[in-house]
Amino acid sequence: MPLLATPSTDLLDQYASVRQFTERFCEPLETEDYVVQSMDDVSPTKWHLAHTSWFFETFVLRPHVPTYEVMHPEFAFLFNSYYIQAGERHTRAERGLLTRPTVETVFAYRQYVDEHMRRLIESIDDHPETENLHSLIEIGLHHEQQHQELMVTDFKHVLSVNPLRPVYAPAPALPAVVPPKMGWKAFDEGMYEIGHTGESFMYDNEGPRHRVFLHPFELATRPVTAGEYLDFIEDGGYRRPELWLSQGWSTVEAEGWAAPMYWRMEESRPFNFTMAGYRPVDLHAPVCHISHFEADAYARWAGGRLPTEFEWEVAAQGQPIRGHFADDEYFHPVPFTGVAGEDELIQLYGDVWEWTSSSYAPYPGYRPAPGALGEYNGKFMANQYVLRGGSCATSKSHIRPTYRNFFPSHSRWQFMGVRVARDV
Amino acid sequence: MPLLATPSTDLLDQYASVRQFTERFCEPLETEDYVVQSMDDVSPTKWHLAHTSWFFETFVLRPHVPTYEVMHPEFAFLFNSYYIQAGERHTRAERGLLTRPTVETVFAYRQYVDEHMRRLIESIDDHPETENLHSLIEIGLHHEQQHQELMVTDFKHVLSVNPLRPVYAPAPALPAVVPPKMGWKAFDEGMYEIGHTGESFMYDNEGPRHRVFLHPFELATRPVTAGEYLDFIEDGGYRRPELWLSQGWSTVEAEGWAAPMYWRMEESRPFNFTMAGYRPVDLHAPVCHISHFEADAYARWAGGRLPTEFEWEVAAQGQPIRGHFADDEYFHPVPFTGVAGEDELIQLYGDVWEWTSSSYAPYPGYRPAPGALGEYNGKFMANQYVLRGGSCATSKSHIRPTYRNFFPSHSRWQFMGVRVARDV
Amino acid sequence: MPLLATPSTDLLDQYASVRQFTERFCEPLETEDYVVQSMDDVSPTKWHLAHTSWFFETFVLRPHVPTYEVMHPEFAFLFNSYYIQAGERHTRAERGLLTRPTVETVFAYRQYVDEHMRRLIESIDDHPETENLHSLIEIGLHHEQQHQELMVTDFKHVLSVNPLRPVYAPAPALPAVVPPKMGWKAFDEGMYEIGHTGESFMYDNEGPRHRVFLHPFELATRPVTAGEYLDFIEDGGYRRPELWLSQGWSTVEAEGWAAPMYWRMEESRPFNFTMAGYRPVDLHAPVCHISHFEADAYARWAGGRLPTEFEWEVAAQGQPIRGHFADDEYFHPVPFTGVAGEDELIQLYGDVWEWTSSSYAPYPGYRPAPGALGEYNGKFMANQYVLRGGSCATSKSHIRPTYRNFFPSHSRWQFMGVRVARDV
Amino acid sequence: MPLLATPSTDLLDQYASVRQFTERFCEPLETEDYVVQSMDDVSPTKWHLAHTSWFFETFVLRPHVPTYEVMHPEFAFLFNSYYIQAGERHTRAERGLLTRPTVETVFAYRQYVDEHMRRLIESIDDHPETENLHSLIEIGLHHEQQHQELMVTDFKHVLSVNPLRPVYAPAPALPAVVPPKMGWKAFDEGMYEIGHTGESFMYDNEGPRHRVFLHPFELATRPVTAGEYLDFIEDGGYRRPELWLSQGWSTVEAEGWAAPMYWRMEESRPFNFTMAGYRPVDLHAPVCHISHFEADAYARWAGGRLPTEFEWEVAAQGQPIRGHFADDEYFHPVPFTGVAGEDELIQLYGDVWEWTSSSYAPYPGYRPAPGALGEYNGKFMANQYVLRGGSCATSKSHIRPTYRNFFPSHSRWQFMGVRVARDV
Repeated sequence: MPLLATPSTDLLDQYASVRQFTERFCEPLETEDYVVQSMDDVSPTKWHLAHTSWFFETFVLRPHVPTYEVMHPEFAFLFNSYYIQAGERHTRAERGLLTRPTVETVFAYRQYVDEHMRRLIESIDDHPETENLHSLIEIGLHHEQQHQELMVTDFKHVLSVNPLRPVYAPAPALPAVVPPKMGWKAFDEGMYEIGHTGESFMYDNEGPRHRVFLHPFELATRPVTAGEYLDFIEDGGYRRPELWLSQGWSTVEAEGWAAPMYWRMEESRPFNFTMAGYRPVDLHAPVCHISHFEADAYARWAGGRLPTEFEWEVAAQGQPIRGHFADDEYFHPVPFTGVAGEDELIQLYGDVWEWTSSSYAPYPGYRPAPGALGEYNGKFMANQYVLRGGSCATSKSHIRPTYRNFFPSHSRWQFMGVRVARDV
Repeated sequence: MPLLATPSTDLLDQYASVRQFTERFCEPLETEDYVVQSMDDVSPTKWHLAHTSWFFETFVLRPHVPTYEVMHPEFAFLFNSYYIQAGERHTRAERGLLTRPTVETVFAYRQYVDEHMRRLIESIDDHPETENLHSLIEIGLHHEQQHQELMVTDFKHVLSVNPLRPVYAPAPALPAVVPPKMGWKAFDEGMYEIGHTGESFMYDNEGPRHRVFLHPFELATRPVTAGEYLDFIEDGGYRRPELWLSQGWSTVEAEGWAAPMYWRMEESRPFNFTMAGYRPVDLHAPVCHISHFEADAYARWAGGRLPTEFEWEVAAQGQPIRGHFADDEYFHPVPFTGVAGEDELIQLYGDVWEWTSSSYAPYPGYRPAPGALGEYNGKFMANQYVLRGGSCATSKSHIRPTYRNFFPSHSRWQFMGVRVARDV
Repeated sequence: MPLLATPSTDLLDQYASVRQFTERFCEPLETEDYVVQSMDDVSPTKWHLAHTSWFFETFVLRPHVPTYEVMHPEFAFLFNSYYIQAGERHTRAERGLLTRPTVETVFAYRQYVDEHMRRLIESIDDHPETENLHSLIEIGLHHEQQHQELMVTDFKHVLSVNPLRPVYAPAPALPAVVPPKMGWKAFDEGMYEIGHTGESFMYDNEGPRHRVFLHPFELATRPVTAGEYLDFIEDGGYRRPELWLSQGWSTVEAEGWAAPMYWRMEESRPFNFTMAGYRPVDLHAPVCHISHFEADAYARWAGGRLPTEFEWEVAAQGQPIRGHFADDEYFHPVPFTGVAGEDELIQLYGDVWEWTSSSYAPYPGYRPAPGALGEYNGKFMANQYVLRGGSCATSKSHIRPTYRNFFPSHSRWQFMGVRVARDV
Repeated sequence: MPLLATPSTDLLDQYASVRQFTERFCEPLETEDYVVQSMDDVSPTKWHLAHTSWFFETFVLRPHVPTYEVMHPEFAFLFNSYYIQAGERHTRAERGLLTRPTVETVFAYRQYVDEHMRRLIESIDDHPETENLHSLIEIGLHHEQQHQELMVTDFKHVLSVNPLRPVYAPAPALPAVVPPKMGWKAFDEGMYEIGHTGESFMYDNEGPRHRVFLHPFELATRPVTAGEYLDFIEDGGYRRPELWLSQGWSTVEAEGWAAPMYWRMEESRPFNFTMAGYRPVDLHAPVCHISHFEADAYARWAGGRLPTEFEWEVAAQGQPIRGHFADDEYFHPVPFTGVAGEDELIQLYGDVWEWTSSSYAPYPGYRPAPGALGEYNGKFMANQYVLRGGSCATSKSHIRPTYRNFFPSHSRWQFMGVRVARDV
């Protein structure tokens, strides 16, 4: 992670901007909303607010500001997520049992950290480790952007389990559009470069940049829509084991899956729970909240397969970063409204993360960083699958062609969708 | 449940007094404190506040006040506890997942119900069902008193799982006293009357009054103290299977029990978590937070046995209702400070519920009331054991000699203790 | 447990007779049949064969025959059931994982123990502890009779989980009879003597003999038949929560119960799995394989209640021990074929164990024996309910009016039925 | 899977030879040994014997021999493993609950199928589908060879849970040898061909043959020995989370892993359970019974990494198939006894399966066969990792350079070991 020659004033702006965006998301929340953990995967909003501050405290302030004193000695224990080398931590599944610290105290903690971070950044050029600090702060900001996305998806789940069907924010008026017909863009076999060059910020899992050989393939021009996915359902998709991976089928049976997460059929019409409440499914928007198993079964049903993460990245190289992001503050995928050529790739970025067939694994020559920060990525490289492209809950400035997101096969609570590939 | 000839003004006072005591308990709470369910047995404080209001709404206002309109149509679903005949209900284990209604709304709900109850009570003598309404309102008030006790024990558990060890209220200064030596009071064999006469308020499970034949027995003059219980621990009580019921021993092994709930040994000295925070165990106070299994093993170790609920009730007949209650607002048992004769029974009431050896079962001729209120007691008469006498979290006006509390053998989160009996 | 003045030749006959009956049951079995544990409650037949021998080895031969050498040092570990004071034991739930010792070795172990027991009994009058040995051997024989019953019910379960629906032995031809109309026998209130006098063999849980006061009651003249139970089912018995204890209803929902264990409806006609294979339910025979919860719900539906174990014992005093037993080698309850007066109690013994409303608890003054044998009964006196009267899988010589069997409320795999009582 | 121009007499020989080898393994077994399922992953020996026969019945005899009649109509239900398109099947976890069919009947079933197979093969050249039948029979034989390996590892587990520590067969006398020093063989970066050419038998998952680009790498000349693995243990390998994948560390903690499966430390010396009983670990033999997580942690500790399956296959191309196989009938890895050049790869085949870092996934252009046989491989391509090279329980004729075995990351009951790779 090389030094960006960012002037300290710009870094301060970046810092303020990311931190404020986190708090902006919280504006419509009631105090009670911050506390609840509605399933093991979910963390309370309060926890996200504190953990992202703990990150700066633990990796920037404590080791690099000798005069820094922690606000509360127990916060290191309560708000460490999974960094074993950073010390003992509170049990993940019990994050929702903490009534204290209160929301007010957590915001005070953020302010406390922000104030110390501001002082540090203002004098960063005088610090003996200027470059290193730049890197660490950048990681901290990207880390916070990741948690912003989790705050959306976690809080959506919290609201969804409430029989009162609360609304985070009403839906904006959207134009009624029909997305362009699905086309296919072809790619030749050959050697391709994969991974980040390191000239700007990257996570360690995006490198080293290296060569792969790809066979010829075609990639769908757009993600699968909810309407197309409904066709799969109505064709018995969830009742035909031959379409599924064995583990996928067991999950369908064990969980009683019959549609994407948050869907419910009422008189054969699909409704879904969204941040704007319980609403009819928008059939022209990309389908979301499907697991890797469902994406894989859909692709098989549609006569294709999932792309590898390398195919996806090759396709994305040179494409503009266009789509609907967290910046739009409408936390749901949206139908494509533009005009596109027949084999032009659309909605590669934003709206929904796209599952790939690639198991999350290190690139050739990968080495995690030393120390606790080395736990950021590498230790999760098993039994998870890569997703690419970002979603409606990702900040636009956070995503890039080489970005690798990853989740277990059964996960559905992120804005996960699917784009089909096929052999030539 | 006969009519009490309570004038409506007195009933209004009673109503106000009970309802206010509930809210008084909440005064030290933060908003976040109301939301959490720290284990399946625990309900959030918010839920208790709403459920006790739902009770009046469901059993008094809706059936008997034709003009009454519910404040929110979903509250009947959210705040029904276990009354199957009162309709569908929210899953018990998910009470802690509800961020809404907010605490503010729940207090508004209480006010809304209170206002309608006030109007009803003021005109109760003109109502065609005056007697019946009196009875229902009395049940509702006793029901609320039961939930007041649960609010204490549930919230204690919520605080206890927090590594920050929060304090509900600081402990008062207590005199340092040594309780009197344990004595034994003897009772002759013979026929005794058991159960409530029905001349004042009673739950249906306290009747019918009936005769039992008892063999001669002796009852300890006071509950076992924490210090005496510590002797049992230090004598290997938790490591000697021969002292335990088979199911008790399995529980000891499965749960890793080595002391009462909330205890922790630090350098061989016992500390415990209390509503006043984490403190040294008061060795002169009655031991509390022990299960039926532990009470039974202790009694066996001490050369005695648990009393039956009939023996307890016979012993309690004619005794004054003296002890430490919720009214004292110090939610922990307290050492006996008075003077007592050698075979005088002390602390029969208050401080700790006393486990008996009696399985909770109907009295001869028992019939539950018709309708949903018939579910109040009868359907729980299996695989639970009876406790008698009330605790430091019980209102003094709530307890009486015939009162039957009941919990499963492994339960420990109530203020449960033990008084030993023995055969002659 | 006093000495029976049984001459040693008679004792030898008794010993031989009980031991042979165990092996007689095994005659139709294949080697594979002995190995399987089809649920945690079930033990493999092989285990029962060995454990009953281990019992004589552990409590008679090893402590009282100085020259006795065990056949295999590991058998004490493998075949101890639950006697903590007799040493470590193999995990109960893993009894079905043992391929060795083989069935042949287990039979050899029986022979080995039998041979040493024969020698001991032949010279028992010369032994310094004649009386004590008599008692121990009698316990051992009654213990083996209990396991004979478990061998039947356990093996029935093993066969039942096999889709091939194997038959233990074909059913005998039974006369087609209609049982007499249900009548009621009345009993006055009063003091009654309960428990064993100790003049012949008894388990410690049957004493001390003591007095109880009973209110007036009536007892049904016969157990409920399968046909009557079918009426309950067809009247929605399993769909009406108001008929059930709360824990019973949870069990109905969690387990999906809709009929007794081993029943299956085919085109609205009930079939059941029996030791004679899968057959139509005999509607005139007593219903069996119902839990305490089901017995309780049935009784409530029928307008009655379960009898207490004291009521049952009072009713049984002086009644002849008549019914169908293991001795008949038809391991299923059979319709009553005799003639009976209007208030004559029939089938009190044999056919089906009758659930009572009494929680299994010690009688006043009960003390378990010292040492490991004291674990036989006392430690199980919690959260179980008493059954009385024996079943079609009980040996006739094993049962008596004071005999107390006990199982948890949800257990169904014994031949458990119900006789209704009611208040006057 | 193309036709092998195998004359029918050779096919008959092959058929007889494979089928007999299965039964030969069973010779030392007692009847009881065939019945038990000691964990969910394990199938009873009896089941393997029947399932491999069911395979020929279902895919060869029933569809292609019009006159064939099944021996028992329920066997199709009982002995289908996971072929959803071949009909309903018995629950996997309940295979150990079946006492019937008896072992004798299962052997009769084998004979019955063998007799019909013999007749079919003798006249195979006259059959309208000669080629297809050849293919199906070959799959059936390779399928049976896979189950032969599972019979060994499953039965080893069955024996291991028995406190009597039974012995399958005594260990042969092995020469005491020290394996050669670990060396490294280097491979250049470049394009390589991967997968089976299809000129002889292959499973569908070994193709299509295709090109991959590999970066330069080195592969250890031999598998890690038990002695080297003991160094890892003694260096705190199981206590240092930084060596482990996150999921691996959770598994270590949840399962209490501190050594390979079947190991037990006695006075700091490792012993292990083998088919020859409980014995000191042979420190010079390749370590076995380690999970993917352990292999990965070991490699990290040793400064390397796991090879990809492509690296392994490239290294194996052109190497002789040498090592210890099931054919040797000593079902445990054995120290290398030969002489080897410094960068000569030894024990690539046999002894232990070698974990790779490759998630089990389809090769480019992979299509499973239509119908139930298409379920053989493809549907398992998720959340499993590839192992290469065969083990001491694999038949020599079964293995080849392109062979892909696969198991979940936590599996340890196969003979799984590790060979380290490293970047250049």
